[in-house]
Amino acid sequence: MTSPAKTIALVGKYNAPGITESLIELANFLDHAGHTVVLESETALNMDLKNFSQMAAPEIGKYADAAIVLGGDGTMLGIARQLAPYNVPLIGINQGRLGFITDIPLERMIPVVTEMLDGKYVSERRSLLQAIVIRDGNQIFSGMAFNDIVVSRGAGSGMVELRVDVDQQFMYNQRSDGLIVSTPTGSTAYSLSAGGPLLHPSLSGIVMVPIAPHALSNRPIVLPDTSEVSIEIVAGRDISVNFDMQSFASLLYQDRIIIKRSAHTVTFLHPQGWNYYDTLREKLHWNEYPSVEGALR
Amino acid sequence: MTSPAKTIALVGKYNAPGITESLIELANFLDHAGHTVVLESETALNMDLKNFSQMAAPEIGKYADAAIVLGGDGTMLGIARQLAPYNVPLIGINQGRLGFITDIPLERMIPVVTEMLDGKYVSERRSLLQAIVIRDGNQIFSGMAFNDIVVSRGAGSGMVELRVDVDQQFMYNQRSDGLIVSTPTGSTAYSLSAGGPLLHPSLSGIVMVPIAPHALSNRPIVLPDTSEVSIEIVAGRDISVNFDMQSFASLLYQDRIIIKRSAHTVTFLHPQGWNYYDTLREKLHWNEYPSVEGALR
Amino acid sequence: MTSPAKTIALVGKYNAPGITESLIELANFLDHAGHTVVLESETALNMDLKNFSQMAAPEIGKYADAAIVLGGDGTMLGIARQLAPYNVPLIGINQGRLGFITDIPLERMIPVVTEMLDGKYVSERRSLLQAIVIRDGNQIFSGMAFNDIVVSRGAGSGMVELRVDVDQQFMYNQRSDGLIVSTPTGSTAYSLSAGGPLLHPSLSGIVMVPIAPHALSNRPIVLPDTSEVSIEIVAGRDISVNFDMQSFASLLYQDRIIIKRSAHTVTFLHPQGWNYYDTLREKLHWNEYPSVEGALR
Amino acid sequence: MTSPAKTIALVGKYNAPGITESLIELANFLDHAGHTVVLESETALNMDLKNFSQMAAPEIGKYADAAIVLGGDGTMLGIARQLAPYNVPLIGINQGRLGFITDIPLERMIPVVTEMLDGKYVSERRSLLQAIVIRDGNQIFSGMAFNDIVVSRGAGSGMVELRVDVDQQFMYNQRSDGLIVSTPTGSTAYSLSAGGPLLHPSLSGIVMVPIAPHALSNRPIVLPDTSEVSIEIVAGRDISVNFDMQSFASLLYQDRIIIKRSAHTVTFLHPQGWNYYDTLREKLHWNEYPSVEGALR
Repeated sequence: MTSPAKTIALVGKYNAPGITESLIELANFLDHAGHTVVLESETALNMDLKNFSQMAAPEIGKYADAAIVLGGDGTMLGIARQLAPYNVPLIGINQGRLGFITDIPLERMIPVVTEMLDGKYVSERRSLLQAIVIRDGNQIFSGMAFNDIVVSRGAGSGMVELRVDVDQQFMYNQRSDGLIVSTPTGSTAYSLSAGGPLLHPSLSGIVMVPIAPHALSNRPIVLPDTSEVSIEIVAGRDISVNFDMQSFASLLYQDRIIIKRSAHTVTFLHPQGWNYYDTLREKLHWNEYPSVEGALR
Repeated sequence: MTSPAKTIALVGKYNAPGITESLIELANFLDHAGHTVVLESETALNMDLKNFSQMAAPEIGKYADAAIVLGGDGTMLGIARQLAPYNVPLIGINQGRLGFITDIPLERMIPVVTEMLDGKYVSERRSLLQAIVIRDGNQIFSGMAFNDIVVSRGAGSGMVELRVDVDQQFMYNQRSDGLIVSTPTGSTAYSLSAGGPLLHPSLSGIVMVPIAPHALSNRPIVLPDTSEVSIEIVAGRDISVNFDMQSFASLLYQDRIIIKRSAHTVTFLHPQGWNYYDTLREKLHWNEYPSVEGALR
Repeated sequence: MTSPAKTIALVGKYNAPGITESLIELANFLDHAGHTVVLESETALNMDLKNFSQMAAPEIGKYADAAIVLGGDGTMLGIARQLAPYNVPLIGINQGRLGFITDIPLERMIPVVTEMLDGKYVSERRSLLQAIVIRDGNQIFSGMAFNDIVVSRGAGSGMVELRVDVDQQFMYNQRSDGLIVSTPTGSTAYSLSAGGPLLHPSLSGIVMVPIAPHALSNRPIVLPDTSEVSIEIVAGRDISVNFDMQSFASLLYQDRIIIKRSAHTVTFLHPQGWNYYDTLREKLHWNEYPSVEGALR
Repeated sequence: MTSPAKTIALVGKYNAPGITESLIELANFLDHAGHTVVLESETALNMDLKNFSQMAAPEIGKYADAAIVLGGDGTMLGIARQLAPYNVPLIGINQGRLGFITDIPLERMIPVVTEMLDGKYVSERRSLLQAIVIRDGNQIFSGMAFNDIVVSRGAGSGMVELRVDVDQQFMYNQRSDGLIVSTPTGSTAYSLSAGGPLLHPSLSGIVMVPIAPHALSNRPIVLPDTSEVSIEIVAGRDISVNFDMQSFASLLYQDRIIIKRSAHTVTFLHPQGWNYYDTLREKLHWNEYPSVEGALR
């Protein structure tokens, strides 16, 4: 991605006010700069943008040199999972408060993207998880997750009991509201709310975080990301598994979910000077003294 | 409850193996000792016990001097809620590992109950919560809880957003998997799993514990039990409220749950020498050195 | 505290830049309004304020109708403990970011204090703790705390083991870095950092929070504030007890600390419209959406 | 380590009752089996064992084929750090309740060791940390840790403020009781008490766990073990750094501790069939139903 003309795909957040104008501005700018602009087909459809050619995710995967996402981390999450098999690098522009993975403010979009297309960027790889659901010996569902794969109970249905094996070794039966298996990327999302640790994006690890576990010693555990995790439904009703909260499957007694690191990775491009700790400090309000009153301590 | 003949109600755990034999043993023993034995009607029905007269909970409430529960904490929970309006003291016998509130081992049932009916016991009062659900200005549901009232999301339905007011003062909008409002009794149950503190049973307090809250500073908060807590559904799908996980109502956008301490209390009778900390130590494995290996520290 | 002339004591934060000017401004204003102004003697000494008469804390306790504190929560903490026996109401003005208990911004000092001296305020009582240290049957130390009493290990000295009894009932031996016994006021301070719950100021409770406890089930426990807590040193080196981190005693093997609610309380006056939840929301960054990125969940 | 005669070093826990007898039994057994037995010199000295030759740790490092430790995890910790440069595999026999890394019960010592010396074992590598302390540009201390390196405050000295940089990138200034940097091995020790996650021993990671952090969002963070962590003292008194709680250095303002993975690793030999999750389940009481009473939920 040094200087010459490129094919750039644009992806916009669904139904966000003002997003169409920003997309048109960016598309025109890139077009004038000599790049080929394509619109992700759902983005084009929803926003009534007819001036540029459109491509579905698999085509973007084949033809685009980069994809630029306008929206929030959720939008990025959705397209990143679709583009994962194609290794197209992703750039994230955020309309509002910066996200963990959409780190370019809208108002600086044009100069920052210009610099980045000129080769001034920090590149970073993120891992994904994939899983299959086995029922009676047959695969009944499969999915991919960028943040997390979550097995959890329904409303008003009491605890679940899950049998967990890692690399064919029995870990435990755990009773809880559910279990989160998260990538480093997902460690700042649901996993964190449930008491999980932060994982640096370059750590080759995944974290399993039980949600409100019955046993107080069922603590989060970080495993090498080469591990294969099997989760079997031992007890509970109205249980489901979800992938990044975007696709779902209902689960029955004795169903097994087999989770592994995906063979694919996603590459993010960040503006030059980006570093992960700056993002953490900003997002987690670190160093905003005093968050709990110093004077009282 | 000093020495003379009493009316004693017996309540047994539903469908528990061996429970019928224990109930018959206890009933015969009490009968021979000159007491009047009545069987709670569901217990009698399910266990095919025809030799003793039967009473529904409200009658037990009117006529019994005490109720003895054979089963676990769950059985106690169910009958305690039903008997709460009548102030009948409760005695709990546990078939298996001792519970938090069923603290007499089955094998010592006869001598311990003898002593207790002879006036040798520790008496203790527990508070309950009651709540109503308001929709469009009308009350659509009400319930009572001995442990907790829980508002939570369904499987695969993302976070809920709840507006919480206490005594007509706005506390916060919180986003999470749900919110637990717990009595001191419930503080060793779901509330504890979700990160709540233990509350001593004689504390005049209730605790609100968010489940996997989005904001890391949404910590458990203990309120005086004179507080009136209002929880309004601001966002989320497939939300419900449950009372001790035993009764449920589905909730819609803008429904409000109003929670207060119940006017009723429940009295437990414990064997002489009982104390709350002994139970905590036993149940929470305190002082089983070393639970995390001392040598490693 | 309705309208007529009052005796107002002023207390300033030690060594804070600009504090002298603010004190002089406030003193002159009160003087002109017909009130009698006295300076707390340490404040006067350190700030070289000679124009007003001075009083030590006990005299303030006897003669003042109210004390106004300029500084932060720490300054308030120090003087509140000294004035506790005398029941002088306290008003807190904060130079910087508002505190939990110093809730009037410096720039609104004059109009707000005017209103409050005119009887427009919210009054609120806070409890304190007192403790004595017993060695070989003799009392060797005593102290009072507004936030917390903390028994903890020294640097590099491994765990302590503490035997805890409550109301002469054995609770547990606990091994940890130490133990915090906190008032509701202190529940937003060190106790919170160590994993304790928030306690509403009007809750009649205290909370015991173990610091990094060896046993994962040694969770925070909230007790009625009528409880007497005894902490005995069973093992460890270089242990001390501190009161609000402002007074200290070194402890030896078998020393016992006996902690009770103080007979005294402290009264705070807040500006009209003040409520505790507003302060919590502000100080704990509640409702600053999204603190952990929503889009990622 | 297949069948022929080996040189086996024996290490015993300091001052443990009965340890001498067990060591003599094991030494005689190994001697009769044709192996060469050497006693670690401190072990020999303290236990008055004169019949076998003695070696200091560096000699053991050079000459022994394996070292067998009788004691607990603490004894193992001490010798493992000394033998780390020499890559001598270690076998752990525990006198009491099994440890995380001393997993052979004393009563099965002879048959299990026999099998293991016959080549039937599971081998596993553990990483270590090393650190240097820099003052005014000069290295004033260095150390190695098998569990953790901990920077912490003294008793009664308030919070520390630490500036943390990772790989020359600024992470944050954090205020707390201190900071734990732990290996996967140490993740079941102090780190766990302070709220850290479990790390699988084969994870290439280290975890930084703040102790009672002032900011609630200062959560544990897991870094790749190729990271270089720099911790600088920004504020606080009476601060020290310790290595496995076994060696210490006092720290001053602006001292920096530079922590990296050690170039050395330690190899443990476990009995055949050993697996890490069995140890976790046993040590953390997983699957001892119900640890918090199920019936109450």
